[in-house]
Amino acid sequence: MPLFTRSAPTTPLDGVDLILADLDGVVYAGPGALPHAVESLNRASDGRALGYITNNASRRDTTVAAHLRELGLHTEPHDVVTSPQAAMRLLRDRIPAGSLVLVVGGDGLVFEVEKAGFRVTRSADDAPAAVVQGFAPDVGWAQLAEAAYALAKPEDEGGIPWIATNTDWTIPQARGIAPGNGTLVSAVHTAVGRLATVAGKPERPIFDEAVARFGAASPLFIGDRLDTDIAGAQ
Amino acid sequence: MPLFTRSAPTTPLDGVDLILADLDGVVYAGPGALPHAVESLNRASDGRALGYITNNASRRDTTVAAHLRELGLHTEPHDVVTSPQAAMRLLRDRIPAGSLVLVVGGDGLVFEVEKAGFRVTRSADDAPAAVVQGFAPDVGWAQLAEAAYALAKPEDEGGIPWIATNTDWTIPQARGIAPGNGTLVSAVHTAVGRLATVAGKPERPIFDEAVARFGAASPLFIGDRLDTDIAGAQ
Repeated sequence: MPLFTRSAPTTPLDGVDLILADLDGVVYAGPGALPHAVESLNRASDGRALGYITNNASRRDTTVAAHLRELGLHTEPHDVVTSPQAAMRLLRDRIPAGSLVLVVGGDGLVFEVEKAGFRVTRSADDAPAAVVQGFAPDVGWAQLAEAAYALAKPEDEGGIPWIATNTDWTIPQARGIAPGNGTLVSAVHTAVGRLATVAGKPERPIFDEAVARFGAASPLFIGDRLDTDIAGAQ
Repeated sequence: MPLFTRSAPTTPLDGVDLILADLDGVVYAGPGALPHAVESLNRASDGRALGYITNNASRRDTTVAAHLRELGLHTEPHDVVTSPQAAMRLLRDRIPAGSLVLVVGGDGLVFEVEKAGFRVTRSADDAPAAVVQGFAPDVGWAQLAEAAYALAKPEDEGGIPWIATNTDWTIPQARGIAPGNGTLVSAVHTAVGRLATVAGKPERPIFDEAVARFGAASPLFIGDRLDTDIAGAQ
């Protein structure tokens, strides 16, 4: 073996077959893309899959993909994994197809619930088979109370499952930092004394959903928040 | 001194010049009065003042008094001390008369804010001098977000005061246990990283307001909840 031969240099991308990127803080922060984000992601995706995962429960995958294409990324709706989609994976494991689901959230979540083959109600009086809760700007106490009524019975006493898309404590808005879905899930938790199963980052289901969708063996996740991103990717 | 004379028997009411009674769980539980509650309270009020204190921020004193009269109690609006009224005492100590106040809550709270001589806004963009937060069924994320924007600056850095009528964790409703005002205050707290000053039970301001209004020297408080009633009366 020659004295000065060395092995090829390695990079963090060697052997990686799927890159999963967070959106807020990685691709953009506010309206525009972060410097170098678009070129770097487009280059890194040469020869491997590139997906995006987002805890945001109020935008559909098509809307997210359109936004990313505007920024210069080559993104299709299939490349976007949302926390409502991960929540549907959990629901399918727990309740029969076609069941009635009480939705706390907005149109984006309703869309996914119906696309997954479930029926939607807004009232605990309809005896739903599960509650799914995600953020939307029009969520208020009345929706939280419906969830509390539907979840009054503990799950080990025959109570129904409760899936939260995510429990982000804050949500950055143009006018400042606002309370996130975690605070609204917590409000219901306080009333019912039980915890939701969480689909989004940093919990596993959204990573499982992404890895399953892309059939990846060695995914790499790019995030910026220790609490929601780094913890979940491990 | 005759051998068998004894002093007059004492009762818990000896020396008491004001009885303050909680409403839910003391006067009524659900639609009707509790057994013996009305006769006992009417009898106990012979020769002393009888007042009622309530954390409920969605009913006015006139509405509460009318309800109590329907149940057979001799109650005037002046006898009812609400957590919004106690919140106004706190506001008057902290901001100038006529100031603009951001209200998170319903008509009952707006009524007290205006009666106390303040002006009401619903938007953080109006640069309010304080935030006051109470329960109403139509409170939702949008109102909580306005509070968070208005309270972004810590009070020791020139931020504005934040008064919560109460922080009851749950609120009993006809259909079950629902999230109380405490959960909605907590949502804002999570976003802004600071705590509200609380007017209602078990905090002191509502008791101070009642004692001041009746000019009492030896009040006795009748409550049923260890967390909100007993702790505060001590």
